[in-house]
Amino acid sequence: MMGASGPLPPPRVTPTQLRVAAPPTAAVTRPAPAVTPGRTWEVSASQSISYAVQLCPGVLEPTNPALARAGTDPDRDSRRRFVVIDDAVDELYGNRIRSYFAKHEIEGRFVIFDSCEERKTIDSVLELVECLDAFELDRRREPLIAIGGGVLSDVVGLLASMYRRSTPYVRVPTTLMGLVDAGIGIKTGVNHDGHKNRLGSYHAPVHALLDPTFLNTLDSRHISNGLAEILKIALVCDRQLFELLMRHGPELRRTRFAAPELSEESGEVLVRSIQGMIEQLQPNLWEGQLERVVDYGHTFSPTIEMRALPELLHGEAVAIDMAITTMIAWRRGMMTRDECDDVLDVTRSLGLPTWHDVCAPGLLMDSLRETTRHRDGLQRLPLQNGIGRATFVNDVSYAELAGACTDLRRAA
Amino acid sequence: MMGASGPLPPPRVTPTQLRVAAPPTAAVTRPAPAVTPGRTWEVSASQSISYAVQLCPGVLEPTNPALARAGTDPDRDSRRRFVVIDDAVDELYGNRIRSYFAKHEIEGRFVIFDSCEERKTIDSVLELVECLDAFELDRRREPLIAIGGGVLSDVVGLLASMYRRSTPYVRVPTTLMGLVDAGIGIKTGVNHDGHKNRLGSYHAPVHALLDPTFLNTLDSRHISNGLAEILKIALVCDRQLFELLMRHGPELRRTRFAAPELSEESGEVLVRSIQGMIEQLQPNLWEGQLERVVDYGHTFSPTIEMRALPELLHGEAVAIDMAITTMIAWRRGMMTRDECDDVLDVTRSLGLPTWHDVCAPGLLMDSLRETTRHRDGLQRLPLQNGIGRATFVNDVSYAELAGACTDLRRAA
Repeated sequence: MMGASGPLPPPRVTPTQLRVAAPPTAAVTRPAPAVTPGRTWEVSASQSISYAVQLCPGVLEPTNPALARAGTDPDRDSRRRFVVIDDAVDELYGNRIRSYFAKHEIEGRFVIFDSCEERKTIDSVLELVECLDAFELDRRREPLIAIGGGVLSDVVGLLASMYRRSTPYVRVPTTLMGLVDAGIGIKTGVNHDGHKNRLGSYHAPVHALLDPTFLNTLDSRHISNGLAEILKIALVCDRQLFELLMRHGPELRRTRFAAPELSEESGEVLVRSIQGMIEQLQPNLWEGQLERVVDYGHTFSPTIEMRALPELLHGEAVAIDMAITTMIAWRRGMMTRDECDDVLDVTRSLGLPTWHDVCAPGLLMDSLRETTRHRDGLQRLPLQNGIGRATFVNDVSYAELAGACTDLRRAA
Repeated sequence: MMGASGPLPPPRVTPTQLRVAAPPTAAVTRPAPAVTPGRTWEVSASQSISYAVQLCPGVLEPTNPALARAGTDPDRDSRRRFVVIDDAVDELYGNRIRSYFAKHEIEGRFVIFDSCEERKTIDSVLELVECLDAFELDRRREPLIAIGGGVLSDVVGLLASMYRRSTPYVRVPTTLMGLVDAGIGIKTGVNHDGHKNRLGSYHAPVHALLDPTFLNTLDSRHISNGLAEILKIALVCDRQLFELLMRHGPELRRTRFAAPELSEESGEVLVRSIQGMIEQLQPNLWEGQLERVVDYGHTFSPTIEMRALPELLHGEAVAIDMAITTMIAWRRGMMTRDECDDVLDVTRSLGLPTWHDVCAPGLLMDSLRETTRHRDGLQRLPLQNGIGRATFVNDVSYAELAGACTDLRRAA
């Protein structure tokens, strides 16, 4: 970044110098205070954010200006962009992406990122920092662009939030998971030390462009992966969406939301789930409120997913978590047996698992304890109360988890 | 964190898989969109923050409850704290810190951090993440506590902002730089790849406890280091503060703000500079407004500091930057020769440099270009317009920088 003088040498880092302190011994003498005590300043401020989540079919059409303009001021536009592309997306759409930017006379720096849960690390973020440094980003006029799935979106989001303390970015999700979940909110994150999303931030994109036509090239396992989050929204806040999934889910999955004869239904499923997600997120973007129905399916799944890595996709772990909590809700009389069967049947019909052998009552209990710590000392576990409604409970026991495991193992 | 089952294995990371894409060749065919285009959701929200900056002499007095209570809810307090302590502070105050927490029946986990600019790295943050994981932090009831100087405050601040996407923390600055600058605002950051604060965040502490009695054990070079930021506030927005520094600066420095006969003056200097800093910061906490008078002294200094590492302290690099801009302001007729001499004399009387041999017009120009990129394409360089007032300019030239260098080298 230093122009003609060449880059500065990296700072020298001394080896690990953290150490844990010895126990107390004696006290040091203290001088008299020189300032009147008690003077206090209260610093208060409010930060407003606003961003558009836009359904934008054909985002790579050369005639569609949305992506070229996203996050910029037309009066003082820059003709450069730093674009991070998922490697699978690059294979399928790389040429169209390059043509798109060329057509719009934007000089793109395209970085291909091998997205998988194992690459969701701080090291990946730092590799991208290096590329950004080399690009010499003008951070106010050249929003980063992330084209890919949930992992890529989370990694680029964290990069954008840390780089120069905050850099704008545009999300272009290419998976169903991205379209209905990861691409919509403001969370970013990477896994660390065996913990899901241990490091991250809240950093809103300047624009999210949702193009369902990307689904056409998505493998059916990843369609199922996204359907898990759609099912989640259905189960906790939209019974009609559940009925749509029950009736059309398998066909939507098979046709990747692109069958002309189901265009109305596929549109409705996508719009309802995006709408439901935004309604839940918007009043609680920074998660000050800890009782979140969108946490449904996300109590046990972080541990299940990390433990089974790389075997389970995020949505698959969420589906298993939802199956477990469905059994708990049934055992508590919050759901009928029929409702319970409907949930498990629909889960399976969407190509999602309801069980994995890593599940054991002890592991689930550990996971619940960990989540409890994350939720300020209470379980705040959303359970279905019928279909399309959730209630929070704080008293799930080991015995209930063991019972749910027995039920599900038997059914698997 | 997984209790009885032991920690999860770390995710496997495949080797560097970023690559830069090949140029475009041909386009993939695209299916027809299934969703009516144009549907847009506007997501808007506002995040309010509020924190106290409190002058609190005797923060380690066993009878002073401020630190034990900071950032907690008395109704549902936790008796544990994760405390990061600067190693030099630990040597002088470690026993008193441990006694303080013991007296308040708080189980502390004390981590000693070797603070120096070279340790202001993402690796340091990750080392602390490991300690935090082992501590099993209850993030809503156990605010992290950072006791140390600016580097420690910046590193722990970034840790707190990333850990579980946001964790509360309390700042207890122990240096003058911390008291009047780094400990007050909401910025966090680490250096990366030779760039000052390349990675960071805006993350407000829940409480900042400013205890000037720590200054009594600070070496005079670090007193000077903090005086640079006090001088900055004086030069751009508080002429009276400048006069106080001119009259009492050397004596305040010599007595570390603790001389009984200067207690009024030392209190006034501290309060005025903290007040001035907060007045500038509060309306612009997230730096949406790019013309910041508190950026005075911070245009060339990041490069000077990183280039001279580890030779110059932050405030020393800031003092050199201010000397350079003072000469530019004089050459532009914005300051008289007398004012200019007063500024340089006061700078030197505070034990601060006005020159370093790494300064060369080429390096300064590169630095200005880099800062210009950071400030959205305009220099937005604050220059003194007399003493105690600043004006922003956008047209500083290589010739002016060369002139300023000649003037200062001659005077050094």
